Amino acid sequence: MIDETLLKRAGVLIEALPYIRQFHGKTMVIKYGGAAMVDPALKDAVMTDIVLLKYVGINPVVVHGGGAEISELMKRLGKEATFINGMRVTDAETMEIAEMVLVGKIGKEIVQLINQHGGKAVGLSGKDAAFMIARQIEGQPDLGLVGEIERVDPTMAELLATHGFIPVISSVAADEAGKTFNINADIVAGQVAAALGAIKLIVLTDVRGVLKNVDDPESLIPSLSVAEVEEQLAQGIYERGMIPKLQSCLIAVRGGVERAHIIDGRVPHAILIELFTDAGIGTMITP
Amino acid sequence: MIDETLLKRAGVLIEALPYIRQFHGKTMVIKYGGAAMVDPALKDAVMTDIVLLKYVGINPVVVHGGGAEISELMKRLGKEATFINGMRVTDAETMEIAEMVLVGKIGKEIVQLINQHGGKAVGLSGKDAAFMIARQIEGQPDLGLVGEIERVDPTMAELLATHGFIPVISSVAADEAGKTFNINADIVAGQVAAALGAIKLIVLTDVRGVLKNVDDPESLIPSLSVAEVEEQLAQGIYERGMIPKLQSCLIAVRGGVERAHIIDGRVPHAILIELFTDAGIGTMITP
Amino acid sequence: MIDETLLKRAGVLIEALPYIRQFHGKTMVIKYGGAAMVDPALKDAVMTDIVLLKYVGINPVVVHGGGAEISELMKRLGKEATFINGMRVTDAETMEIAEMVLVGKIGKEIVQLINQHGGKAVGLSGKDAAFMIARQIEGQPDLGLVGEIERVDPTMAELLATHGFIPVISSVAADEAGKTFNINADIVAGQVAAALGAIKLIVLTDVRGVLKNVDDPESLIPSLSVAEVEEQLAQGIYERGMIPKLQSCLIAVRGGVERAHIIDGRVPHAILIELFTDAGIGTMITP
Amino acid sequence: MIDETLLKRAGVLIEALPYIRQFHGKTMVIKYGGAAMVDPALKDAVMTDIVLLKYVGINPVVVHGGGAEISELMKRLGKEATFINGMRVTDAETMEIAEMVLVGKIGKEIVQLINQHGGKAVGLSGKDAAFMIARQIEGQPDLGLVGEIERVDPTMAELLATHGFIPVISSVAADEAGKTFNINADIVAGQVAAALGAIKLIVLTDVRGVLKNVDDPESLIPSLSVAEVEEQLAQGIYERGMIPKLQSCLIAVRGGVERAHIIDGRVPHAILIELFTDAGIGTMITP
Amino acid sequence: MIDETLLKRAGVLIEALPYIRQFHGKTMVIKYGGAAMVDPALKDAVMTDIVLLKYVGINPVVVHGGGAEISELMKRLGKEATFINGMRVTDAETMEIAEMVLVGKIGKEIVQLINQHGGKAVGLSGKDAAFMIARQIEGQPDLGLVGEIERVDPTMAELLATHGFIPVISSVAADEAGKTFNINADIVAGQVAAALGAIKLIVLTDVRGVLKNVDDPESLIPSLSVAEVEEQLAQGIYERGMIPKLQSCLIAVRGGVERAHIIDGRVPHAILIELFTDAGIGTMITP
Amino acid sequence: MIDETLLKRAGVLIEALPYIRQFHGKTMVIKYGGAAMVDPALKDAVMTDIVLLKYVGINPVVVHGGGAEISELMKRLGKEATFINGMRVTDAETMEIAEMVLVGKIGKEIVQLINQHGGKAVGLSGKDAAFMIARQIEGQPDLGLVGEIERVDPTMAELLATHGFIPVISSVAADEAGKTFNINADIVAGQVAAALGAIKLIVLTDVRGVLKNVDDPESLIPSLSVAEVEEQLAQGIYERGMIPKLQSCLIAVRGGVERAHIIDGRVPHAILIELFTDAGIGTMITP
Repeated sequence: MIDETLLKRAGVLIEALPYIRQFHGKTMVIKYGGAAMVDPALKDAVMTDIVLLKYVGINPVVVHGGGAEISELMKRLGKEATFINGMRVTDAETMEIAEMVLVGKIGKEIVQLINQHGGKAVGLSGKDAAFMIARQIEGQPDLGLVGEIERVDPTMAELLATHGFIPVISSVAADEAGKTFNINADIVAGQVAAALGAIKLIVLTDVRGVLKNVDDPESLIPSLSVAEVEEQLAQGIYERGMIPKLQSCLIAVRGGVERAHIIDGRVPHAILIELFTDAGIGTMITP
Repeated sequence: MIDETLLKRAGVLIEALPYIRQFHGKTMVIKYGGAAMVDPALKDAVMTDIVLLKYVGINPVVVHGGGAEISELMKRLGKEATFINGMRVTDAETMEIAEMVLVGKIGKEIVQLINQHGGKAVGLSGKDAAFMIARQIEGQPDLGLVGEIERVDPTMAELLATHGFIPVISSVAADEAGKTFNINADIVAGQVAAALGAIKLIVLTDVRGVLKNVDDPESLIPSLSVAEVEEQLAQGIYERGMIPKLQSCLIAVRGGVERAHIIDGRVPHAILIELFTDAGIGTMITP
Repeated sequence: MIDETLLKRAGVLIEALPYIRQFHGKTMVIKYGGAAMVDPALKDAVMTDIVLLKYVGINPVVVHGGGAEISELMKRLGKEATFINGMRVTDAETMEIAEMVLVGKIGKEIVQLINQHGGKAVGLSGKDAAFMIARQIEGQPDLGLVGEIERVDPTMAELLATHGFIPVISSVAADEAGKTFNINADIVAGQVAAALGAIKLIVLTDVRGVLKNVDDPESLIPSLSVAEVEEQLAQGIYERGMIPKLQSCLIAVRGGVERAHIIDGRVPHAILIELFTDAGIGTMITP
Repeated sequence: MIDETLLKRAGVLIEALPYIRQFHGKTMVIKYGGAAMVDPALKDAVMTDIVLLKYVGINPVVVHGGGAEISELMKRLGKEATFINGMRVTDAETMEIAEMVLVGKIGKEIVQLINQHGGKAVGLSGKDAAFMIARQIEGQPDLGLVGEIERVDPTMAELLATHGFIPVISSVAADEAGKTFNINADIVAGQVAAALGAIKLIVLTDVRGVLKNVDDPESLIPSLSVAEVEEQLAQGIYERGMIPKLQSCLIAVRGGVERAHIIDGRVPHAILIELFTDAGIGTMITP
Repeated sequence: MIDETLLKRAGVLIEALPYIRQFHGKTMVIKYGGAAMVDPALKDAVMTDIVLLKYVGINPVVVHGGGAEISELMKRLGKEATFINGMRVTDAETMEIAEMVLVGKIGKEIVQLINQHGGKAVGLSGKDAAFMIARQIEGQPDLGLVGEIERVDPTMAELLATHGFIPVISSVAADEAGKTFNINADIVAGQVAAALGAIKLIVLTDVRGVLKNVDDPESLIPSLSVAEVEEQLAQGIYERGMIPKLQSCLIAVRGGVERAHIIDGRVPHAILIELFTDAGIGTMITP
Repeated sequence: MIDETLLKRAGVLIEALPYIRQFHGKTMVIKYGGAAMVDPALKDAVMTDIVLLKYVGINPVVVHGGGAEISELMKRLGKEATFINGMRVTDAETMEIAEMVLVGKIGKEIVQLINQHGGKAVGLSGKDAAFMIARQIEGQPDLGLVGEIERVDPTMAELLATHGFIPVISSVAADEAGKTFNINADIVAGQVAAALGAIKLIVLTDVRGVLKNVDDPESLIPSLSVAEVEEQLAQGIYERGMIPKLQSCLIAVRGGVERAHIIDGRVPHAILIELFTDAGIGTMITP
């Protein structure tokens, strides 16, 4: 009598219920980057997911980086990007360019997209209300203005989140003296997740998750404990791009976050699938 | 790379988003009855739907009757149920039986089922906090203790709804002098919807909706205005069971409720399908 | 110059003042039952007392049972009531009857009477908002669905009490799996008093209090410590009806309630006399 | 079985219930003076009454004068008190004496007595938080620093009253320029009652109320309308002492106070008798 | 005995008191630009002033532009800035550059400076929480993405201001469709002042104020009414740079702001001098 | 271009900023007395300072005595003032006089002066809301009604302070039995500072501070620790008038107050100079 499709649709909503219940009123930090920040359809899908989270009673907080666009503007300004161990060598001019791109271009674009999808996003860098205080990264003076987070003051982000807003955080912060630093966005995401007492950290990547064999996409490891990740990091078996993502997860889970997930941002609505279906995708890091 | 089914699932959640947004923080009154109150699988589906509503930020309020079970207990007590124009002739003993069945059996069973599904329901009759004040129905003295609602005080129901509870209302109320009356649950639902400023009233029935030709289930009328319903009620074209349901919708919509829906309670998750998909089912009454 | 009577009246109000002050803002649990629940004049007096408490700033919470009326309906339905050690053997049908009578008849009658006297009562069973979770009573499988309280969640009752409402609690609750149990109302009263942090538990009975000699109403024991009650219960000197009342008091006082009182419900306004005059009546259980 | 006296006591409490209900949460202004401010037993009775009011949910506000004690201190300081039409001629030195006596002696004594009886009183003059702004009384320059109230700012008194405190107001206030004025306490009481939206003004006097024949205490007029009082004041039939009391009542009732009462302060607990018994005493002024 | 200088210092604080009192709890919008945004000592002075305002109970809101720095980055990127009637012709690439410079460079620099001086600033553009909605400026299609403010939603800015934060607003906003526009910062300041119900708008310029004779700095006009400004704008007597500043003041004062001030940003602490001394500087626009 | 004086003025405000920031939201107790309570210009200066404190976000609380005026009224009433070790022998009549003068004259005059300067003061004695409970001073029965503070209940003073009011406290309090005592105002100030968790106690005196050589005003000791003061008090090197001031500071600092200051009340605006300039005056007592 009734269209079978409609019943299936209801079934999906019903399947989501226990997860909605479990995450209700909780904070969830989403590290946004990779293909999901480039492909228009994927962008659209991520924004929709974030707004849906907000409407079903979860507090999403977005953290983003933007290395490619920084390099591009540098190039247009006749400045070459150089890297040491994958980290950008950052002089004062590079820092200025990075901040303009991250805060004034990418951050506001995400804010605008979320708003277009029915949310109310507010773009923040560590400087806003001295939300995050940075310091120079230790032991690597050649990198210049590359920093790490010294501490996070969650007051303003929580004020915004509890009044219906979605914080969008760019990975830039100043130290106590007011000097600006570029900080790895993955690491920022992990620290913000811990500081805000998030229930989950979700890191969007361009691979299926942590792979046993980096050349075999089917060799996905569905779950790893903090101890396992630490051991394997020490063994040096991961490729460079995965390392900060795993470190981000370690920071979060050691800091009290229940679960951290490295998922495939090339899959549309990967966030919803991870959160609201029994399937689960990518690799989950547990305490 | 990713299972097609998962993408479809995400699509269903996404399709629901605009509706979730639209109904966020609003009150929705559900008249529960018919097959959906008898069949265990349907019961289960309705309770799941109600709890899902609560978790996505909507305030569901349930109103129920229970004629069949009243008649059954009367029969067991050797008392014959008699009706005039479909309304139960209610002497003092019948009233006592009706109240025990509605409040002490059906109401608490619904409360318990909602709780089992993860909600926090509170069973109420009009007597609780003098939530609804009744008076004898006019012009029909032969019916005995059959009443109508004189006024509704929404204070307690709103207090409960805004603190995370789901009110479940039995269609019994006392008059100012403390005399108890049996009241048509459809009518109660319409009046409660208006008094609580609900955005929608959803009436579960055992037909597909309002039909042009009562013998042809395919002759469903998807939408009717208050004026159309009033005219057709005056023409007497509706069968008896549909009349109080339509009157309930008229009371609600005239009282400020945006939309009232008569939907098929025999379809599992009919509430979710109606609210959260583009399909829409049953008949909608508009201002 | 002024009527002597008026001065005496003022004196009574003045005598009440220190008690009103002492109990201000505190919760008081009243176990309602016996003659006070049958005789219309006594009923009326109890309801007046409860409403007066509310108006002078005390939070009364009423707990009731209703064995006689359960047996009566069972009899009308051709079902014989059987007891083991004074506890009702409760099969599924008996449980259904008990719940209908307690929740749908007695509970709502008390609610209505309190409202008639100017209060705003709300009838609750353990199922409402999963207020009380039950479990099968241990070691007595022959009793069937006779339970005990596993835990009480005071949230909803406190919400109602602090917003001007008077909770009226029927002694029925479900276990985690949703199975319904009949629970001794005296025991419920003691547990609710402890869970709500009540200052007093008042148990209405049909005797003058605890008597030294059960045949001599003048042998009233005005005060007993928990230790004394425990010792005497172990000695088995109390008659059966008094045992659950004393156990109720023990549960309350051990759970932090300052005083528990077993008083004579056949005396009109026994509650007011106990609380607001220097006289004091019945037996008081102290820590 | 139970002492008859106890039942009678309960009856008195019960008789008070409808009045407690009616006055719950309302403000009541008491003009304190006359014998009730001199006789120790009467003082004690008034303080008890005021504290009882507070505990049953009413907000009492006390206003007092103190002419006799002012004259006494003046005499001790070798200064003669002179009056024109019953109003004290007030030079700067007299004003200083009056303020010391009213604020520093009588006001604090009342505060202390209320505290001894279990209340929490706070003594205030019009100067505190510029609660009352005065101006010189019109057309009577010979009186010197005799003023009238220009306006009342209820903010601080309401803050105190809603936080459990009992304001005790001395009839002294300054004008905008800071000059201090002595103001008739009866008139202050009427204006404060109106400004605080009181439900009742109660003026304690040393007569039974308004008498038809001033020499016949039995000629008490139980009730007068504002119009009747205005007419009779114009006819000049009242003796001097009663005039400001009647004017106080007129100010209050015209300003929205429901009832003003002139009662016999020589009767112990006259306030309780007036408020909480069916008797009623003295003369009531109605709109 | 005491150093004369200290007494003079106290005198300055005392002179400020009536102004502090007058502006307590009020919002004040500061249009920041010109020399005060370039010279390090002046920058420092402005930030100190803003933080002082916050600490004495005023809510400062900063609005800034940044034309020169936009042109500079354009030049570095090999793009020529072109203007029509003083307004920048803005194609998509120019808009992207402008947004990066305003939001990601100038805005965050101001935020950081305020924080260094002890405040807690939060940088915002119109996109954040859709705080300001823009539309294309009318009648000038050749200008490209030059917009005007259609409406301001003060919710988020007020939330931040009442929780101790200082909003710093960049003059960029998107329209309903998400297209980004560059908006004259003077005009934004006037509209924000009106939307937030500010008591004052203070526009920092590089001249002494409105001059009668543009070549004679001594010809300062201390005060102008809205009507006078409107008349003189119609007469076309003002030089180009002053026109948007005057229009900003008109928008503010017509929108309910009490006073708008055009003051000389080259004077250190011009804001404090204007607000907290009897002197007053620059030109004041009154209703 | 700009008047040099204006720049200097701004400089003073700027110098005050770090102090305003440091003391924001904190309570500061000011012991008012000596020349500053007699000389009209000094009075005026103190009141202005207190109101300024309130407006820049500090909560000032004033404590005052008034020995000279008590003696004067005693003399006018033909009563001789006698002292033992500098403490007034206080019989019942003296106590009555002292209370009238302190509460009804000096206290209200301070209240009125603060109000004239734009504050909202409320005069309190220990009796108000039983704010301070006294007891007879130990070991000196000849002194009569001279007391010491047993405990302070900060509730009401905090309620007033957080709602914009300035408490002005007279050094009179009653014991539990209601007997009134005269208490050294210096000691009251120290105890109130500790009870309210003040950040500072400021004691106004008629000397420059604690002097090494009492005859050499230039021998000011700028800072003393609690241990140093205790030692020197034990050595008996201080003159009588300084002893209670030092004891007051000890009570405060031992009770958690960060700094206590004995400053020269003969210097106009000594409070502002001490608090808001880098100079600092008088003697500071530190933990």
